[in-house]
Amino acid sequence: MKLLRFGNAGQEKPGLLDGDGNVRDLSAHVDDFAGPTVALDALEALRALDPADLPLVAEPGRIGSCVASVPNFFCIGLNYTKHAEETGSKPPKEPIIFSKASSALSGPFDPVIIPRGSEKGDWEVELGVVIGRECLYVSEDEALDYVAGYCTINDVSERSFQIERGGQWIKGKSAPTFGPVGPWLVTADEVGDPQKLDVKLTLNGEVVQDSNTSDMIFTVAQCISHMSQFMKLVPGDIIATGTPSGVGMGMKPPRFLRPGDVMEIEVQGLGAQRQDTVAAK
Amino acid sequence: MKLLRFGNAGQEKPGLLDGDGNVRDLSAHVDDFAGPTVALDALEALRALDPADLPLVAEPGRIGSCVASVPNFFCIGLNYTKHAEETGSKPPKEPIIFSKASSALSGPFDPVIIPRGSEKGDWEVELGVVIGRECLYVSEDEALDYVAGYCTINDVSERSFQIERGGQWIKGKSAPTFGPVGPWLVTADEVGDPQKLDVKLTLNGEVVQDSNTSDMIFTVAQCISHMSQFMKLVPGDIIATGTPSGVGMGMKPPRFLRPGDVMEIEVQGLGAQRQDTVAAK
Repeated sequence: MKLLRFGNAGQEKPGLLDGDGNVRDLSAHVDDFAGPTVALDALEALRALDPADLPLVAEPGRIGSCVASVPNFFCIGLNYTKHAEETGSKPPKEPIIFSKASSALSGPFDPVIIPRGSEKGDWEVELGVVIGRECLYVSEDEALDYVAGYCTINDVSERSFQIERGGQWIKGKSAPTFGPVGPWLVTADEVGDPQKLDVKLTLNGEVVQDSNTSDMIFTVAQCISHMSQFMKLVPGDIIATGTPSGVGMGMKPPRFLRPGDVMEIEVQGLGAQRQDTVAAK
Repeated sequence: MKLLRFGNAGQEKPGLLDGDGNVRDLSAHVDDFAGPTVALDALEALRALDPADLPLVAEPGRIGSCVASVPNFFCIGLNYTKHAEETGSKPPKEPIIFSKASSALSGPFDPVIIPRGSEKGDWEVELGVVIGRECLYVSEDEALDYVAGYCTINDVSERSFQIERGGQWIKGKSAPTFGPVGPWLVTADEVGDPQKLDVKLTLNGEVVQDSNTSDMIFTVAQCISHMSQFMKLVPGDIIATGTPSGVGMGMKPPRFLRPGDVMEIEVQGLGAQRQDTVAAK
């Protein structure tokens, strides 16, 4: 299934993309996609529905993040070798975990707002994972059984805030609109192997990131298993699994986001995003 | 008001501590204390109730964390000079922000579980702040207007996971039960000045942390204002504002948590906690 949320920010309804690419209204069957409602058993109940029986939404309008109110918006750092190199870092020996403020969540086509005082806004296309089942001390072999689905994420970053302002990355990862997620939550059964998906980001029409999840240092299963040794993952948690090379801070000279820039990003099979970059008021 | 949540884990009801120290049941008036229900206007509605009219709870049983389902569990690092020194760090020039997984939330009297593979579990008594209003780009002068209330927090930590496992602190801050919060959410009006509260932690009966929030490097108002330059805080967000000196990693030789240890902690006026330390299964 391809699940989504449509409508104005804060008033989104849950929907399903049918085989013809039309949006069907799921709000008679689920309140929203957030936390327990993306648990694997809750999704299984939706799977029993016939899309043709659901109300067709002729004009879905705005698309929101494909999950809301995330318990945690986790990220994996430096998970592609060439990206680690372009940032001047060694490839990590084990997954680096950090987080974004959950209020960074944003729709896939909403403008990205450059925060006040920002000079080093940057882009990061990533494969997103949404957890579907409580997950603590799981092995790599079992880890993918805990995944509800996958989605496209732009892990928007502010490098000065991230690196030059006190040592923990969350400060540069958390501004409002720094977390475009979606358009769709594509259920795990429909994705199959998450390690063979093209990931691509275009800035003002120029391809700047172009890789495949097969290039990840730590697979999705390894990341989930590793995280579960340190914390309990819960349904609705998002994990952005790291970005490939081609970010602005890695360019020579560095190239950072300016108002008017357009980011277009896509993870294979998970849908495309497009964001206009605007200045904070 | 002193607000609390009582009942078995996952089934807590909201309550109010009346002037005689009895628990009154608020569940006819609010579903739970989480997110929007701790917004300042929602709390204002509760303030209009007469505690004597609320059902008396003769046997409240277990006390849960005073807020649930937190959008974010933020922490401030190294916010007392002597604590920075005992960790071998310089006092920071601006607040260090990091986070715990929201699934670390725990009741104030629940056992603290030492995770598998942990050798360096540690304690951190802290003044906790709960946000009551969306907060972005606020000045220090305005910052306390965004606070719903205050609470006692033990920012339980695993120093090896935090420092020796990949560079971001969240890995050592997030295990289940690493976030005892409560017993009460004491509304801001009842606390007054948050910079004159004693903070104290006793390990197996011995006082190991004993300080006052007047010793903070960055005040609560400065922390909130600073955070709001980088992220939007939302109702229900928790901020643990840093711990004073006296943690285990600062002792010579270091002293870390072992099963059977008992932590008793208190922030003046916000209620005491007590945790038995147990091993993970």
